[in-house]
Amino acid sequence: MPNKILLGSLRQMTTGHTTQGFWRHPEAQSDRYNTLEYWIDHAKTLERGGFDFLFFADVVGALDVYQGSRDPSLSGAVELPMADPMLLISALASHTKRLGFAVTGSTTYEKPYLLARTYATLDHLTRGRIGFNVVTSALESAAINLGYDRQIPHDERYEIAEEFLEVVYKLWEGSWEDDAVVRDRANNVFTDPGKVHAIEHKGPRFSVPGIALTEPSLQRTPVIFQAGISSRGRRFAADHAEAVFLVNDSPVASARQVRDIRQLADEAGRRGADIKILSMATIVVAQTDEAALAKESDYRSYFDIDGQLAQLSALFGIDLSAAGLDDTLEHVETDSIRGMLEIYTKLDPDRTWTIREVAEANALGGAGALFVGSPATVADAMEQWLATSGADGFNIADPVPPLLSRDVVDLLVPELRRRGLVEPADDAEPLTLRERLLGEGHARTRAGEHPSASYRR
Amino acid sequence: MPNKILLGSLRQMTTGHTTQGFWRHPEAQSDRYNTLEYWIDHAKTLERGGFDFLFFADVVGALDVYQGSRDPSLSGAVELPMADPMLLISALASHTKRLGFAVTGSTTYEKPYLLARTYATLDHLTRGRIGFNVVTSALESAAINLGYDRQIPHDERYEIAEEFLEVVYKLWEGSWEDDAVVRDRANNVFTDPGKVHAIEHKGPRFSVPGIALTEPSLQRTPVIFQAGISSRGRRFAADHAEAVFLVNDSPVASARQVRDIRQLADEAGRRGADIKILSMATIVVAQTDEAALAKESDYRSYFDIDGQLAQLSALFGIDLSAAGLDDTLEHVETDSIRGMLEIYTKLDPDRTWTIREVAEANALGGAGALFVGSPATVADAMEQWLATSGADGFNIADPVPPLLSRDVVDLLVPELRRRGLVEPADDAEPLTLRERLLGEGHARTRAGEHPSASYRR
Repeated sequence: MPNKILLGSLRQMTTGHTTQGFWRHPEAQSDRYNTLEYWIDHAKTLERGGFDFLFFADVVGALDVYQGSRDPSLSGAVELPMADPMLLISALASHTKRLGFAVTGSTTYEKPYLLARTYATLDHLTRGRIGFNVVTSALESAAINLGYDRQIPHDERYEIAEEFLEVVYKLWEGSWEDDAVVRDRANNVFTDPGKVHAIEHKGPRFSVPGIALTEPSLQRTPVIFQAGISSRGRRFAADHAEAVFLVNDSPVASARQVRDIRQLADEAGRRGADIKILSMATIVVAQTDEAALAKESDYRSYFDIDGQLAQLSALFGIDLSAAGLDDTLEHVETDSIRGMLEIYTKLDPDRTWTIREVAEANALGGAGALFVGSPATVADAMEQWLATSGADGFNIADPVPPLLSRDVVDLLVPELRRRGLVEPADDAEPLTLRERLLGEGHARTRAGEHPSASYRR
Repeated sequence: MPNKILLGSLRQMTTGHTTQGFWRHPEAQSDRYNTLEYWIDHAKTLERGGFDFLFFADVVGALDVYQGSRDPSLSGAVELPMADPMLLISALASHTKRLGFAVTGSTTYEKPYLLARTYATLDHLTRGRIGFNVVTSALESAAINLGYDRQIPHDERYEIAEEFLEVVYKLWEGSWEDDAVVRDRANNVFTDPGKVHAIEHKGPRFSVPGIALTEPSLQRTPVIFQAGISSRGRRFAADHAEAVFLVNDSPVASARQVRDIRQLADEAGRRGADIKILSMATIVVAQTDEAALAKESDYRSYFDIDGQLAQLSALFGIDLSAAGLDDTLEHVETDSIRGMLEIYTKLDPDRTWTIREVAEANALGGAGALFVGSPATVADAMEQWLATSGADGFNIADPVPPLLSRDVVDLLVPELRRRGLVEPADDAEPLTLRERLLGEGHARTRAGEHPSASYRR
């Protein structure tokens, strides 16, 4: 039975991810990001808690806008050092049976012929538990190390992404027919060559004449995740995404984005209602509301405003050190900031904010939802959020791993199970990730529901 | 204690690897190449047998020279379908403690900034058990799907590889000082920014101004493996390789290559004697010589000459279907074939060979050594080979997995242990891969021994 509230774990293979400073908490283990044991423990915790997937964000550059330097990111462990989460997946899959894995891949820096093999390999190894979080990679500090003088403009990156997905859909869906591989020892035929087709892709950006190198996997196309927040990004999501990751701190603001994406998908000939929407959330749960507030207060004492400003500066593309902490945002660069405030709705664009307030507003919960309280309080708030926003579930951050994740699994999930919102602990039948999101029988994309299916023979 | 005979397992994430047709044997499991369980079983078998490493070959194109078509490769499972072995490593590492992993990476198709992160991540996750088998990727069928009109010429690929290694050495060795990462919670310093340096690489082919994204791993530079057989390839190996993989069927022919590589390394200012040489071997072992011969005969009955010719045609770059099976090689293309015969010494270049004889000479053992017999017979032959050739060990193929590998571990390794050539089963201290090859204290490359060390601060 798929969960009625989708549960994802939002992580990155680094120490400081969604918000900064919390690695210093005495019980935090985020500095073990480069060990297998740390991640295997986390994956097992999630599986025990009925989570649908572990979502790995990824970037391939240093955050270096604040103070015009990467130094604050280095000293504060702000997404640095880091490692490549793609390489963790097979280990995590070998220690779990049901947990899905959504892993970020860049359509700007990868080659589609190789990326298709990467995700197909993981779909085989995990027996269909793989998702592909499509990013177009915004960081200039990545571009300059990857063969470009400067970052490719935003909308051009999306044009590349469109053709990139066309190529990988053709490789995943159109090259090998379902019954191409026969493994017939007696007749000496492993694959029927008549059922394997060259994709003959010739576009403005990619030329891929050949066949896919991999045989069909359970899902063929991995579940497509997307998190674009620009208008171009939303159109892209409406065309391609099966799961969209949103960052809002209010369900009302989220509701606008949810409606927008689903309407765009309907207009694109898809069923917008089928697109699963995950809201970013940070959850501090304890036996009682009071105990949860005490935990929150303990965590908050480790907040690092410099680290947070380093991350926000990279996100905004504006050096927030150009003004003092108690200066208002207008001191920095008004127009661009206004746009960011509208996206990061925690910051009401009609109010005047100081730099300090901007940073502190994002402490612990980042720009997403922050739920604090007893299991019943948090479960109520989650249900209310989903009812108001129209979203389907949460991508749950953990600034103090493994503390918040363990509490969610040990304290909140039992309450969600009691309410019938999360599958029972003993419901152990493995499903593909797509089936977890869309229900049994949905191992693969369907014609009329997703563009990849149009390339299937 | 490092092994006195180095033992590697030569595999590829595909069904038909070194020789063809054997997947049809009733007990062969090579068609399970796309499952985690198959590879975890294999890794555990190797660890039980005291193997030093599991070596993964890899290509990213279809073999399509024979009959001008990929169809024979598809029907015969000749390196098709396949998957990406890089993605297996973390799972295999999580189920072993001491086995090393040498994984192929292409300097022609990868970006050095990303490849450096890939291997550094694996070196962290495996605690220093990673090797990088450097290839320049010969297949035209790969090139045309990866952004090129045709394959880049051979020597130009090696020029790219030279600069590529310079970039990744700088990233692995020169960017983060050993004590850059302090993880100091009390003083809010994760990394000391003054000890992290931009590499500022600007060459004719790559521009990489930034810092490495990863912190130092146990080995920093993964152990560099190489298998180039051209004269340019040998010079490259002499400059960079710490382990060289050779394919010869006679120890005398191998001795020439071993001397050549070590002499070139001495001339390049390295210590040629430190370069570990692995000879390809296929081993059929049983309790008695007679039983081993019976096994060999059973295996050989599954040989597929069409599949073998598909593979040899791609290797030679010549369509061997252009003549009949009983025509001599001269019917195809003399000069090029002669060069190949000299390299694949199983085929004496002074004799006249038919196409059929060429294929059958490579059955079961490929172009490498083939040892058949009782444990004592095979161990004697291995010792004799190493004494004559000057090589350090073997990269052992298994055309009928898991049968040959299991017999090696269960029957041959006890004999090698009795002779003191392989470490005892209970010698369980984990070492880095470089220490397994060069001895304790060699976790990292050393100045005067390897070019990567010159970039270390």
